[in-house]
Amino acid sequence: MDIRACLFDVFGTMVDWRTSVSRDLAAFAKEKGLRGVDWLDFAVDWRKLYQPSMEEVRSGRRPFTILDVLHRESLEKLLSRYGIKALSAAELDHMNRAWHRLDPWPDAVEGLKRLKARFIIAPCSNGNIALMVNLAKRAGLPWDCILGAETARAYKPMPDAYLNSCRQLGLTPASVVMVAAHNNDLKAAKAQGMKTAFVARPTEHGPGQTTDLEPDMACVDVAARDFVDLAFKLGA
Amino acid sequence: MDIRACLFDVFGTMVDWRTSVSRDLAAFAKEKGLRGVDWLDFAVDWRKLYQPSMEEVRSGRRPFTILDVLHRESLEKLLSRYGIKALSAAELDHMNRAWHRLDPWPDAVEGLKRLKARFIIAPCSNGNIALMVNLAKRAGLPWDCILGAETARAYKPMPDAYLNSCRQLGLTPASVVMVAAHNNDLKAAKAQGMKTAFVARPTEHGPGQTTDLEPDMACVDVAARDFVDLAFKLGA
Repeated sequence: MDIRACLFDVFGTMVDWRTSVSRDLAAFAKEKGLRGVDWLDFAVDWRKLYQPSMEEVRSGRRPFTILDVLHRESLEKLLSRYGIKALSAAELDHMNRAWHRLDPWPDAVEGLKRLKARFIIAPCSNGNIALMVNLAKRAGLPWDCILGAETARAYKPMPDAYLNSCRQLGLTPASVVMVAAHNNDLKAAKAQGMKTAFVARPTEHGPGQTTDLEPDMACVDVAARDFVDLAFKLGA
Repeated sequence: MDIRACLFDVFGTMVDWRTSVSRDLAAFAKEKGLRGVDWLDFAVDWRKLYQPSMEEVRSGRRPFTILDVLHRESLEKLLSRYGIKALSAAELDHMNRAWHRLDPWPDAVEGLKRLKARFIIAPCSNGNIALMVNLAKRAGLPWDCILGAETARAYKPMPDAYLNSCRQLGLTPASVVMVAAHNNDLKAAKAQGMKTAFVARPTEHGPGQTTDLEPDMACVDVAARDFVDLAFKLGA
């Protein structure tokens, strides 16, 4: 394989959104004296609105809209459903930016540093640029650039999300590896001619996770235990 | 000043394009046995076609086209004018990518590292993403992300080149500093509400340079000797 770049899914693959969002919201709630909410449930419910919100854009029913805006709309729906009221715009902004403060899995930074020495590394996430930049600076993710939905103007798994990202690097899809903990992401990348690598994140959805525990070898070129193992397997 | 990010002009401000392009082309010519060309003149002539090529896009006569393509068209015009023939597509690609192999000014990397510890740092250049990524990896420029013409879909000094870059960081123009060695770039950034910093590059155009030797204090908030001095003056 003549590989020049690695593109990475972020939510779930690079960072532990479930634990991080609930931790962040719980701290905020404690400070504000908000009681009686299970913030782990809240984080999971928020994430459940993620795919439907992007589907409005993918279907063409809505012009391209960045994820910070979709997250914010979903948050307001959810707060109403949970009966949480009287938060200021600044407080809503703070809650919404919980997605900018996600913690990386323990192997992520070390693996990325190794991969960066040999390849161009960039996120190819549905998160927008500001979200990815703030998250990376806080977590120490050493990206070469930020690619993904906002630069491609398309949400994964739409073909343009992958194709425009490769094109913006001046590379053919065959010389770029898509890295994810989700087989459906890799299946879509593979369909556009990219190489694919699977890294299992068996607790992304908590202790009882039943999905994406194993790579689907029909669409996975390289399966790795973690990002350090991935760097080794890609010769970095 | 409540500053959150610094955006940088690249050609001339961050890197010495004139010396680098001529050095790169001279090495290529030597390898190919191409004689009788002054590659310093050639580099300057290539750069003279830069503004007119972008003006086609700015004026709306041409849809947005990345700089690698504009550079390539200008290169072919220039080779014809110089009477240089019989180069393969791969050779033309190699020559065109001389713009991906520009050397930084001696203070650039050290200054950026210091600024990165306190601010988001990104290029806001007319160069496209692939050009900026390849240049940064080779030169060691530690960008947080790549912004500029390709992400903004507008060439400086058009307002959208500045406004979209700030918006993509989720920041107001007033909290972002535009850094350049060119007063006209800073004047355009200032007109959109950005803060501005001038760093003189008195040999960008060679020993006889007469332009941009001094900051135009009508549009410059901070004047610095070099990037290390800039970091100091911005409190980084």
